[in-house]
Amino acid sequence: MLNMQTKGSDDLKAVISAVSTLVEEATFEANKDGITFKGMDPAHVALIDLAWPASAFEKFTCDETLNFGVRIDEFSKIIKRSAKTDDITISIEGVMLTVRIGKQKTYKLRLIESSASETPIPKLDYTAKVVMPHQQFDKCLGDIGVVSDYIDVSVKEGGDVAFMGRGDSGEVEVTIDDIKESSAIKDSKGTYSLEYLNPVVKAVGGSTGDVTFELVDAKPLRIEFKVANVGRIHFYLAPRVDS
Amino acid sequence: MLNMQTKGSDDLKAVISAVSTLVEEATFEANKDGITFKGMDPAHVALIDLAWPASAFEKFTCDETLNFGVRIDEFSKIIKRSAKTDDITISIEGVMLTVRIGKQKTYKLRLIESSASETPIPKLDYTAKVVMPHQQFDKCLGDIGVVSDYIDVSVKEGGDVAFMGRGDSGEVEVTIDDIKESSAIKDSKGTYSLEYLNPVVKAVGGSTGDVTFELVDAKPLRIEFKVANVGRIHFYLAPRVDS
Amino acid sequence: MLNMQTKGSDDLKAVISAVSTLVEEATFEANKDGITFKGMDPAHVALIDLAWPASAFEKFTCDETLNFGVRIDEFSKIIKRSAKTDDITISIEGVMLTVRIGKQKTYKLRLIESSASETPIPKLDYTAKVVMPHQQFDKCLGDIGVVSDYIDVSVKEGGDVAFMGRGDSGEVEVTIDDIKESSAIKDSKGTYSLEYLNPVVKAVGGSTGDVTFELVDAKPLRIEFKVANVGRIHFYLAPRVDS
Repeated sequence: MLNMQTKGSDDLKAVISAVSTLVEEATFEANKDGITFKGMDPAHVALIDLAWPASAFEKFTCDETLNFGVRIDEFSKIIKRSAKTDDITISIEGVMLTVRIGKQKTYKLRLIESSASETPIPKLDYTAKVVMPHQQFDKCLGDIGVVSDYIDVSVKEGGDVAFMGRGDSGEVEVTIDDIKESSAIKDSKGTYSLEYLNPVVKAVGGSTGDVTFELVDAKPLRIEFKVANVGRIHFYLAPRVDS
Repeated sequence: MLNMQTKGSDDLKAVISAVSTLVEEATFEANKDGITFKGMDPAHVALIDLAWPASAFEKFTCDETLNFGVRIDEFSKIIKRSAKTDDITISIEGVMLTVRIGKQKTYKLRLIESSASETPIPKLDYTAKVVMPHQQFDKCLGDIGVVSDYIDVSVKEGGDVAFMGRGDSGEVEVTIDDIKESSAIKDSKGTYSLEYLNPVVKAVGGSTGDVTFELVDAKPLRIEFKVANVGRIHFYLAPRVDS
Repeated sequence: MLNMQTKGSDDLKAVISAVSTLVEEATFEANKDGITFKGMDPAHVALIDLAWPASAFEKFTCDETLNFGVRIDEFSKIIKRSAKTDDITISIEGVMLTVRIGKQKTYKLRLIESSASETPIPKLDYTAKVVMPHQQFDKCLGDIGVVSDYIDVSVKEGGDVAFMGRGDSGEVEVTIDDIKESSAIKDSKGTYSLEYLNPVVKAVGGSTGDVTFELVDAKPLRIEFKVANVGRIHFYLAPRVDS
């Protein structure tokens, strides 16, 4: 029913790593257009919305809409046994998912009951947008994590961007030189948990070029990761609510 | 009474590492022909039979048969202080073993009571034999460990080899491209614990070229590791008995 | 009141690392001549006496004597966010210490109550002196740590140096080829804890060239670390008292 083949293993590794930061069990949907995933962490603070179009695969056949569930750590361990240049073939028959890595390894993984819950994607009118290199963003999170568990992002009307953190021991402000683009139709800001940001930013790590994030006061931040052939990886993160 | 000198430290490191995966206290036997070790793990599942001939040392003198016991972790820590090119001189006088590493370090290690228990070496008529690069075997164990705690090895009459694993979450089959030799006089198979195989395969690691393993149904597997100048490192491992 | 700028971050990293091996809270003193630190570990076994002259900084202004206290792990985490070539600017205003790393990051760290206790520096007439490369000393401590928790240092009148260790399992003697200088006006020796020596020797690690240590029977050892632009890092360590 479903049969697909990647070119190399980097894209799939990035996708699985990103998903594994949020959920233990993941339900993917496949149809003739490709693969999608939508899922939230148990606390409903973060959400991933992912679309991987059929055209981005070496081969892709899926003749009907199909939901399949996997334990993401089991799936991840298998995918990590691939070398960078190994093409990966995935097919599903009955309750078994078959993963062929290169020509030498064939894994069969027992599917799990796929969860039926709907994950509604926030539709928001963002008021600010920033594009910067993934690596700069990753470093910035590290710089801020030294004194704080949260990052404050502020984009002024006109596009000035500031990243700050504040904790018991002190505070920090980080300036990024390589901002590619930044704009805001009004002053916009939010405070977001590094506990959620750090893992997902590291997970998509080496495979991504720029990171785009969009914000609007008091609503979830949206980060778009560019991973080579994967159509869309959107990561939503609710802002901290001051208590 | 005993005085021996290695060329470099790699061989000795491999030998000590291999032995340390099985026992905490090791009794070696030295005589004019060289050094031997035979020992089993506490559960009597695995056995190492090792012979290191006098001719393989830079210098070797031993004028009588001598058993000496060491705590293998103490001995191992000392040997690990050597660089790859350090020649190592070992001598025994009374209850002290002296280890000279290069020209700069001299350790004296207190010998322990050597255990007198006999370790009988299995004499088996193996029905199948496979020779493959050590590195391929190590990777194969890793591939299988992702879904299983055991490796199934099967060699068909004619020489087809299959490596498989099976666990709660799924199963795997691994094909090796670089099999150097494989033959069987009848279909032969066995299931062996990765908990025992992984450490010893990693322990002899970098110093070994090919790995030869021989099997026969329902009897211990025998693996021969080739370590440069060490005559024989045989590792025996009892198959899993289905309960 | 205080404003100073380093050239690169290596010196500051070495200083902070060294101090962090002894205390959790550190009180530095600044005046127009530079920065000093004196502190002991809680058990009063080891002492660091450090002087970093104003002339060694890119910029240095301090118009009055000023004591400031920091939690050394918080300070250390911040400094570690700097690259090797990042100049670091430190200034103090009120209860806040500002650290600017390169041009991109500005941290503000809350100062803590500075402790007022005096740390008296031992004034001793040492009877022996040894100069050797830092790296050789570090390796020597590692070689000895394999069998002992203490290092025995002995310098004979005439300058012969011996490093030894002795533990339950055995003993070791290490010879150093690259002794740069060694002299003694009388036979001198002492036994010192690796638990204190190892961390501080590793802490000043990559930034130091030679290590000078001076000893006299039954009194603290003094080690001088050479760190590029830092005037003085003296580490005192009381000898083991046989019970």
